[in-house]
Amino acid sequence: MILTVTLNPAIDVTYHVDELKPGAIHRVSRVDERLGGKGVNVASVLAQLGVPAVATGLLHTSLHPASLAGEQLSNQRGDGSDSFFPIAGATRRTVVVTDGREATGFWEPGPIVTPQEWDGFKAQFRLLLKGSRVVVLSGSLPRGLPESSYATLIEMCRTAGVASILDTSGPPLPLGVAAGPEVVKPNADEAAQLGEVPERTVVVASMGPDGIRASGWRARPPRRIDGNPTGAGDACVAALASGLARGASWPSLLREAVALSAAAVASPVAGLADLELYQELLPQIVVEET
Amino acid sequence: MILTVTLNPAIDVTYHVDELKPGAIHRVSRVDERLGGKGVNVASVLAQLGVPAVATGLLHTSLHPASLAGEQLSNQRGDGSDSFFPIAGATRRTVVVTDGREATGFWEPGPIVTPQEWDGFKAQFRLLLKGSRVVVLSGSLPRGLPESSYATLIEMCRTAGVASILDTSGPPLPLGVAAGPEVVKPNADEAAQLGEVPERTVVVASMGPDGIRASGWRARPPRRIDGNPTGAGDACVAALASGLARGASWPSLLREAVALSAAAVASPVAGLADLELYQELLPQIVVEET
Repeated sequence: MILTVTLNPAIDVTYHVDELKPGAIHRVSRVDERLGGKGVNVASVLAQLGVPAVATGLLHTSLHPASLAGEQLSNQRGDGSDSFFPIAGATRRTVVVTDGREATGFWEPGPIVTPQEWDGFKAQFRLLLKGSRVVVLSGSLPRGLPESSYATLIEMCRTAGVASILDTSGPPLPLGVAAGPEVVKPNADEAAQLGEVPERTVVVASMGPDGIRASGWRARPPRRIDGNPTGAGDACVAALASGLARGASWPSLLREAVALSAAAVASPVAGLADLELYQELLPQIVVEET
Repeated sequence: MILTVTLNPAIDVTYHVDELKPGAIHRVSRVDERLGGKGVNVASVLAQLGVPAVATGLLHTSLHPASLAGEQLSNQRGDGSDSFFPIAGATRRTVVVTDGREATGFWEPGPIVTPQEWDGFKAQFRLLLKGSRVVVLSGSLPRGLPESSYATLIEMCRTAGVASILDTSGPPLPLGVAAGPEVVKPNADEAAQLGEVPERTVVVASMGPDGIRASGWRARPPRRIDGNPTGAGDACVAALASGLARGASWPSLLREAVALSAAAVASPVAGLADLELYQELLPQIVVEET
């Protein structure tokens, strides 16, 4: 099983309106709502590939399936949010208003997590580790958590003999890397600023549409894929996690990661990939030693 | 006790941002959230006056104090939402984005209420009627409810010997009036289009800053009050309900209604009135026979 961790998930809300006019009242014709966040997207892509995955993290009690309303929501969403740890602070909403021409976003600040809740999460994480081969740690940290939170979880993985993949930014990134995850996936800018990396840690640097680079190899798509780049990084991480869990070689790992990223760019929905395109691209990915 | 009914309440959400720019992503610096809706505001003004009031209506289960998260929310809000009937559909959110210069609103469409939920509400309403002297019926109807819903509740009030006040618009207004509430409070336009009104029903027509007119009397404030007119109508209804419950005369009822409306205009928060201004205006209201 692959375990994905999203400590700061979001309810992704889309408001469909006729035309966004500052200062006006808009009747929203349709509201789309889904549980989002990088680790949730990774788990969703893995589920699409048929790879057993569980998403965990921190979620407001009202959204948690342990509550009646949360159970209804979770059934509607089918998102397996029952493995999240319930907290009192409201999960942030990311509201996107779209009028068919442009999208305007409003990002709520999110909850403040208490030390007791963080301890509760770690206890639950320790249990989930027992059934896991690979752990994916994705995204930002909510307020209240120490910047060393990912480092702590990576140390727990190492103690349990479980591989870990870190995909974050800002101060939690170097702190997490120092704890020695198997893989860290920064973008090109973040990779340049990483500083010293433990010998056991492989840096998989994404170069956007030019593919990825890791462990003496470089992989790139055969052509430029147009679409929505949101979620491409999460699809890349999903492929890395799946390959690590099977013990795949680096060339085949990178091939799958680049093909799945491109297939996610071609999909209009974050957390889903175009599986036909994935199968088509897989043999065409260019993998070279650097 | 005065019972206020809000069948289509809203979670009033305010997003504070630096500057609203269509097409951009905005970090929301502060989120304010309160249970709103016309009947909720009426109950809130009555509570401020020290008049015993209970708010009821239809509320999504996750917001209902019967759920753990709802209980936390309700305690934070102190809104007495425990007398609402829980439904499966999500209560609509009215999101207002304010950048300090202008306010831009997004109104969600709200839930669809099932016939079973409507039956459940009516059973609970019948119980609440036992302790009520006056019932206030305010605002729009959610999807799924018959347009005759207010008429049905007004008939239940009459059977129970409880006075009712109707404050709505559109098709539910004439249907409700035909059932013979004690008072109906349309605005000037709606009053002109009301058609035939049962003999027992008093029409209290609001004329905005020029006061109100009812039952052969007219009342107006001594001067123009500047401020936020949202909620003035709800304060007017709160005064009418409080006066009806005590059996006050029409001139004194109208005097209080006009003074409380003006005091609500002067308050920056919907559902609250400026009580000092209320006391000051009360003896200055001009009440004349028409």
